[in-house]
Amino acid sequence: MGELIFIGLGLYDEKDISVKGKEIVKDADIVYSEFYTSHLVGTDFDKIQDEMDVEIQVLDREGVEQEALPIQEAQEKIVIFLTAGDPMAATTHVDLRLRAEEKGVRTKVVHSSSIFSAAPSILGVQHYKFGKTITLPFFEGKESYPESPYDGIRDNKELGLHSLILLDINGEEKKFMTVNEGVKALMHMEEEQSNRVITEDTVVAGLARVGSSEPELRAGYPEDILNHDFGGGLQCMVVFGGLHFMEIESLIAFADAPESIGEE
Amino acid sequence: MGELIFIGLGLYDEKDISVKGKEIVKDADIVYSEFYTSHLVGTDFDKIQDEMDVEIQVLDREGVEQEALPIQEAQEKIVIFLTAGDPMAATTHVDLRLRAEEKGVRTKVVHSSSIFSAAPSILGVQHYKFGKTITLPFFEGKESYPESPYDGIRDNKELGLHSLILLDINGEEKKFMTVNEGVKALMHMEEEQSNRVITEDTVVAGLARVGSSEPELRAGYPEDILNHDFGGGLQCMVVFGGLHFMEIESLIAFADAPESIGEE
Repeated sequence: MGELIFIGLGLYDEKDISVKGKEIVKDADIVYSEFYTSHLVGTDFDKIQDEMDVEIQVLDREGVEQEALPIQEAQEKIVIFLTAGDPMAATTHVDLRLRAEEKGVRTKVVHSSSIFSAAPSILGVQHYKFGKTITLPFFEGKESYPESPYDGIRDNKELGLHSLILLDINGEEKKFMTVNEGVKALMHMEEEQSNRVITEDTVVAGLARVGSSEPELRAGYPEDILNHDFGGGLQCMVVFGGLHFMEIESLIAFADAPESIGEE
Repeated sequence: MGELIFIGLGLYDEKDISVKGKEIVKDADIVYSEFYTSHLVGTDFDKIQDEMDVEIQVLDREGVEQEALPIQEAQEKIVIFLTAGDPMAATTHVDLRLRAEEKGVRTKVVHSSSIFSAAPSILGVQHYKFGKTITLPFFEGKESYPESPYDGIRDNKELGLHSLILLDINGEEKKFMTVNEGVKALMHMEEEQSNRVITEDTVVAGLARVGSSEPELRAGYPEDILNHDFGGGLQCMVVFGGLHFMEIESLIAFADAPESIGEE
């Protein structure tokens, strides 16, 4: 009997998969992957394939969503579906898993490192002080910014909570929104809505290449971050609510924040 | 020049560390670990040491917090500090990292799988619909339950958000709060506060041994979960806010929820 196993490749490069995940890949019959919902910035397809020491078949959106090739093969075989980051963060993977179970195919999930936990970790701030995660979409070609990201950050701040802000990815075009663009978008939303969610005193952080040995982190006021060079790669942001004493120390020590963030 | 590298062991057993983490451990001068803030349920110390193929020195609270042995050694050497789950989820690790940087020791973090991302993943529900994470402490010997966990779940529910509930761990005694105890505590809090946060119609989930090949998941109403046998190991819970159609499907398919959770 077959099985469909979703395995996360983790945050950054071909070595962020777990030891368990790599061992399971080695014993599988077929290994699929997709890079249209996300993408490992610190590596390329050949390096992933070399690290796994197996042949990997890359699927496009149609292969996953229409043809559901992994499900067809998993009726009889041990099939792996490898994806960047956490294996179930994308709705399309949850949908694939649901359709597999409907067809009687057994499924498993092998977890990996993910930005949801790594962002608080690398900044040294407390995981349980984060509220809802916010997604900032690309705005080009649209008439106005959506209100939901701004409202989400406001809801979190009203509860004293931090907001992790995931910046849009266009995996097919390998285009990633930058922290600079994200800060600009938030400042623009503030101008439109004027609820004092993103002010000149709001503490924010930009993060690039989390999971690499040289992540670029910078915390401070929006003006400090707006033009900071984060140097490419996948980026995300945090807008802080109330900061605990040790969190302030962490942002100063690990993310080069100005000492003035502790003076309120 | 030395370096202090915090490496996460991940969720469950000795094979949940990343390939990158394991390689860095092999090249290090000294490897420390601690198991008093958390604990890998699916393995034991000998298996971890065998998998890493190095000698590991286990520190107690005093060795980490008072003597700060890893910082002393990292002045000159490459020192690893291995911890269960995400390496920076415990405040005591952030504190150690801050003190190391103060002493001029360079620090790094190697991420791993963590319950903050794995719990939504394994249930097939959406990561960005989670609000603040709640911690339920052990209550024995206390006169009354604290109000903050209940209030936190209420705040999340009012925004339509899910609450991940981490159940207390006493690492020194290897004692873990069970889902059954957690549900009981929440029902008790509801009786005391009566804000209709945990009602008979509230959808909750219990999760045990996430990260293993056989996690036990069960979603439904509090009555369904209260006496379900989750079979030991590290456990956590989710109290759901508004459920999306696909999330309902996931809870039925992956966590054995009754179909009636879709009928509101």
